[in-house]
Amino acid sequence: MKILVTLLLGAMVFCAQSQTPSFMPLPHSIEMQSGKMFIDSNFNIALNGPESKRLTVASGRFLARLGKATAIRIPMNSILRRNKGNVEITIQSSPSMPSETADESYSLKIESQKILLQAASDLGAMRGLETLLQSLQQDISGFYFPALKIEDSPRFAWRGLMMDACRHFMPVDVVKRTLDVMSSMKMNVFHWHLSEDQGFRVESRKFPLLHEKGSDGMYYTQAQIKDIVQYADLRGIRVIPEFDLPGHATAWLVGYPELASAPGPYDIERFFGVFDPTFDPTIERTYEFLDAFFGEMATLFPDPIMHIGGDENNGIQWNNNPAIQSFMNDNGIRDNHGLQVYFNKRLITILKKYNKQMMGWDEIMEEGLPTSAIIHSWRGKEFLVKASEKGYKTVLSAGYYIDLSHSAAQHYKNDPITSEMILTTEQRSRILGGEAPMWAELVNEENVESRIWPRVAAIAERFWSSGEVKDEVDMYRRLLAIEPFLELSGSHHVRNREMMIRRLWGGNDWQILMNLLDWLEPVEGYKRHGSKPRYNSLVPLSRAVDATMPDACNVVKFRVLLDDFVKTKDSNTWNKMYAMITETMAQRQILMEILPQKPALREMIPLSDNVMQSAEITRQIMDYYHKNKSLKGLNTKDLLNRASVFQTVHAELESGFLPMMEELVKKLE
Amino acid sequence: MKILVTLLLGAMVFCAQSQTPSFMPLPHSIEMQSGKMFIDSNFNIALNGPESKRLTVASGRFLARLGKATAIRIPMNSILRRNKGNVEITIQSSPSMPSETADESYSLKIESQKILLQAASDLGAMRGLETLLQSLQQDISGFYFPALKIEDSPRFAWRGLMMDACRHFMPVDVVKRTLDVMSSMKMNVFHWHLSEDQGFRVESRKFPLLHEKGSDGMYYTQAQIKDIVQYADLRGIRVIPEFDLPGHATAWLVGYPELASAPGPYDIERFFGVFDPTFDPTIERTYEFLDAFFGEMATLFPDPIMHIGGDENNGIQWNNNPAIQSFMNDNGIRDNHGLQVYFNKRLITILKKYNKQMMGWDEIMEEGLPTSAIIHSWRGKEFLVKASEKGYKTVLSAGYYIDLSHSAAQHYKNDPITSEMILTTEQRSRILGGEAPMWAELVNEENVESRIWPRVAAIAERFWSSGEVKDEVDMYRRLLAIEPFLELSGSHHVRNREMMIRRLWGGNDWQILMNLLDWLEPVEGYKRHGSKPRYNSLVPLSRAVDATMPDACNVVKFRVLLDDFVKTKDSNTWNKMYAMITETMAQRQILMEILPQKPALREMIPLSDNVMQSAEITRQIMDYYHKNKSLKGLNTKDLLNRASVFQTVHAELESGFLPMMEELVKKLE
Repeated sequence: MKILVTLLLGAMVFCAQSQTPSFMPLPHSIEMQSGKMFIDSNFNIALNGPESKRLTVASGRFLARLGKATAIRIPMNSILRRNKGNVEITIQSSPSMPSETADESYSLKIESQKILLQAASDLGAMRGLETLLQSLQQDISGFYFPALKIEDSPRFAWRGLMMDACRHFMPVDVVKRTLDVMSSMKMNVFHWHLSEDQGFRVESRKFPLLHEKGSDGMYYTQAQIKDIVQYADLRGIRVIPEFDLPGHATAWLVGYPELASAPGPYDIERFFGVFDPTFDPTIERTYEFLDAFFGEMATLFPDPIMHIGGDENNGIQWNNNPAIQSFMNDNGIRDNHGLQVYFNKRLITILKKYNKQMMGWDEIMEEGLPTSAIIHSWRGKEFLVKASEKGYKTVLSAGYYIDLSHSAAQHYKNDPITSEMILTTEQRSRILGGEAPMWAELVNEENVESRIWPRVAAIAERFWSSGEVKDEVDMYRRLLAIEPFLELSGSHHVRNREMMIRRLWGGNDWQILMNLLDWLEPVEGYKRHGSKPRYNSLVPLSRAVDATMPDACNVVKFRVLLDDFVKTKDSNTWNKMYAMITETMAQRQILMEILPQKPALREMIPLSDNVMQSAEITRQIMDYYHKNKSLKGLNTKDLLNRASVFQTVHAELESGFLPMMEELVKKLE
Repeated sequence: MKILVTLLLGAMVFCAQSQTPSFMPLPHSIEMQSGKMFIDSNFNIALNGPESKRLTVASGRFLARLGKATAIRIPMNSILRRNKGNVEITIQSSPSMPSETADESYSLKIESQKILLQAASDLGAMRGLETLLQSLQQDISGFYFPALKIEDSPRFAWRGLMMDACRHFMPVDVVKRTLDVMSSMKMNVFHWHLSEDQGFRVESRKFPLLHEKGSDGMYYTQAQIKDIVQYADLRGIRVIPEFDLPGHATAWLVGYPELASAPGPYDIERFFGVFDPTFDPTIERTYEFLDAFFGEMATLFPDPIMHIGGDENNGIQWNNNPAIQSFMNDNGIRDNHGLQVYFNKRLITILKKYNKQMMGWDEIMEEGLPTSAIIHSWRGKEFLVKASEKGYKTVLSAGYYIDLSHSAAQHYKNDPITSEMILTTEQRSRILGGEAPMWAELVNEENVESRIWPRVAAIAERFWSSGEVKDEVDMYRRLLAIEPFLELSGSHHVRNREMMIRRLWGGNDWQILMNLLDWLEPVEGYKRHGSKPRYNSLVPLSRAVDATMPDACNVVKFRVLLDDFVKTKDSNTWNKMYAMITETMAQRQILMEILPQKPALREMIPLSDNVMQSAEITRQIMDYYHKNKSLKGLNTKDLLNRASVFQTVHAELESGFLPMMEELVKKLE
């Protein structure tokens, strides 16, 4: 029984040693020059300008990663405060917290004898160090940085990732690794979703029943939060905590039912969706509680912005509570929207006491909301536009919901500011940037990283690089190329996914299953939530769908090869594409043998058949083209029609073949 | 270019579905019966007897792992306090701390309708849950537990692992994962080496310069320590902290040089070995400091035992200090041994104040040391014997130094009590058990787990199972079989190692490099410390040697197959062995092409050649046997002589081929 490894054929392309490094996000300007700066164990960094702990730590992380990548014995403390060194870093201003107004620009010049990195701030220098490390190359003489000149600065000041630690708890090490990789992608906002119907995740000393009763024991201690906030700051990342109010509030009310708009008792919610439990905005007790609560949280979270959620309040408890209805009557509040504005205005006053500005999901933008609030657009880009028009600062998350298994290309297309948007300069300046939310109904600590990476790197590029950078295939090419850099920077997305696949398969030859899964994608949108029995927060997420990536990796590789082939007509490239298909087909026998024997994989049988049928049709198309150097005379429409039959969804998975085949036909025709 | 995956051929054997589960450590008695208890999403656990948080948490971990392994939607909180359930657990006594006298026995009875688990204590029930999970099987109808009866109890009360968090810091998540996997192997002592020349790793509020100046910022906060101690307790594991005194003490003295036996200043030591800095045992300041210090530590570490190190004091600072010399003179102390006994006696008095018993490495066992001290034998088993004869309780670590890259079989052979040891019953009872020390000069957070697992499972079996259980090949067979269980229980040893190999190779086809490394082993003993330039604690550990296992995995697999073949003469088994060799040889071409291109892998070229040459000779032997059904007429001596040439050490690695070939020849002759 002999089995071939398909993947490596693809791999050879992307890991090729090229003269132009694959940067992500793409810098503003790159000028490649001739020359190489080779690396040995004496490699060091010289720091000039005001002292910055952030930059010292970043330099240490740089050296540690350089040592890991090269296996050269570079001591990770080869950092000097003096003019001369292999990397000479100069910053102008004293360090400051990352913020909307921070200057993150830098210029990088690599020569064969030294590297100059200059920046206004420590933040800029840190961004430049990531670019430098991405430029690492190797040839037969050793590892080196290629001579080049780069000028770079971010397009948007807000380049965020939101992590939902409530639907599934995300342990401290997962959070820290995510921060590490974010900083390697020059992201600077970590939005931490900390309260929900399914869990309250912060230790409160003032109101201990919040975490004691609302978290199943899975919460961040105050020491851990302080540690994480400092860890983020050292990586040039702001931490914006979110405490979702007045809806999505079940977990708060388990310990403090007297704050709800209907009598308790309440239990932690296990299912997902929109639920009734809502704070009562008409009683003073609520504001006394929130005043004390936010006072406590202000000591943990130094950033001037506090996210209060504000989304998906279904109003049912308010409608059914006579006291709330008469309060609205007495105060001339017309509807629940008005009542939520009343609540939010009270919140703004409380937050102001603690020098916090309010941010909330776009439902908060109702008549009467002060423009000091920041609007987080999620229901559609029109809310972003409306917010900027009305004078609110605003951040875009609509179109970046990475829990929905859309392709990276789709997110990449979504731009916070496009030429079609008719806005004044001032209105534009209120669009701070964007943020990718990683809602956690269907991810846990094992697979959250492989749902974030590598594709959030494409979103990070959207936020950092020029709006002109939009070649999708080039994005995917670089996304494949920087995967080892993401892993080097701390992500466990590859290794955890491999573990999940190994667990499902139960043997060392799990690459066969991985190759199959790499042609498949989880169904998009909210479809998985419709599966029976319904998901809840206590059941395992260890099926094939949980180990499958939203961008089917084989499809991505095939598309990049196809693009190369169309440009170059290189027969090597063609052979690699062909091998991906035929070697997949060669695995049919073993899959047919093994899948029925494994109860956890039996659901994969129809998917395996679909992939094999689609591969067979793809091979027919490729054979025809290879023989005729054209698809003329081939009934491609019929073939694609036949292929569409093999797109049936099973086990919450669908094949990525059809769109790939359509592209193949289109590009070869 | 087509490459074959060797490994999967081996894998098919070990992951085969068998009727008798592969237990590790092997239970005292197993009686397989007919019947299967199939698992569905309603699977639950019923707890009877006194409430135990430990057992409730263990039940949750059991269900979570069961859910992950089966991908069945079993809620992890399906734990009931009532008589009836799928697993009915009954414990007799109230929960208590794990200790030398705890009863960890259990009996397990699996029937097709229910599972009965009975134990005197919650600890015993937890051990039984691990056995139950190890019995998980699957067939075409689903996942099930096979009917059986098991009676089990540990041979030794002390089944430990020591983690050195000083030479390289081990982050909290690494510690927690290690505790998870230890508990899955029924281990119950976590000895935490927390101070050294290279680092002081605990936050001290009384003496903050200890961690502030002695740790490079890499230390455990008091909150983290409390969390870890509780985490360990919930897994039935004692935490024994070690603060090494009076030698190995450089990192303490960076902040408090006035306690040293020679004037400072001191810097954190970066190199490895035995160094001069030593506490001054003749000044009262030392004891005032240590009194306050151990008082503080006693609040963090509840276990009644405190390990004070005591090893490798070179005495140089004492010899050179006239005040110390005259103190010795004045007090009739003859030599440095006597001075260390004086120091230890003072320490014992201090520890007693905090209800702590002293434990130390076997150097502390000098004339005059009270028998309340526990002797940790590391220099040789003779110290264990001597200690038990002299009336000390004692623990064996000599022979279990897992940093030295000896084979698992070698450690497995090493038994704390053998029939050759002539001891009274009382003397035997003082031998508490054993402990595997993971010294961390040459491991860091990336590879420490793959140096601990899977082989510490073999040591865990030595400590738990009967001394009669000593079939080496059977041990290896089960060691391979329980690898997925170790991973399911939390170990990152497989995934981290794969990451390191992927990083070295730089592409998806890293399995080729892994296959090569799986024929190799790091050189044994202290040889790596002789390499130039010398290792220190700041340089990367990311070479091939760091990603290679002390038991070359391919050699282990081949040996297990060989053992099977000799017993069964099964041609399938033979073909698998043969395929391992020929497919390795088939990778020669690609290795010859790739290795010279990769600066970090160039050192592998001679090793790759050696493996290929050895494989060729192995194939010749196998071909001859296959043709002649015997080795008669083959000059095996000459072949083995030729093979010995290809055992040359390169890059701190050596081939595992020769002993394997010798075994092949011996078993086929």
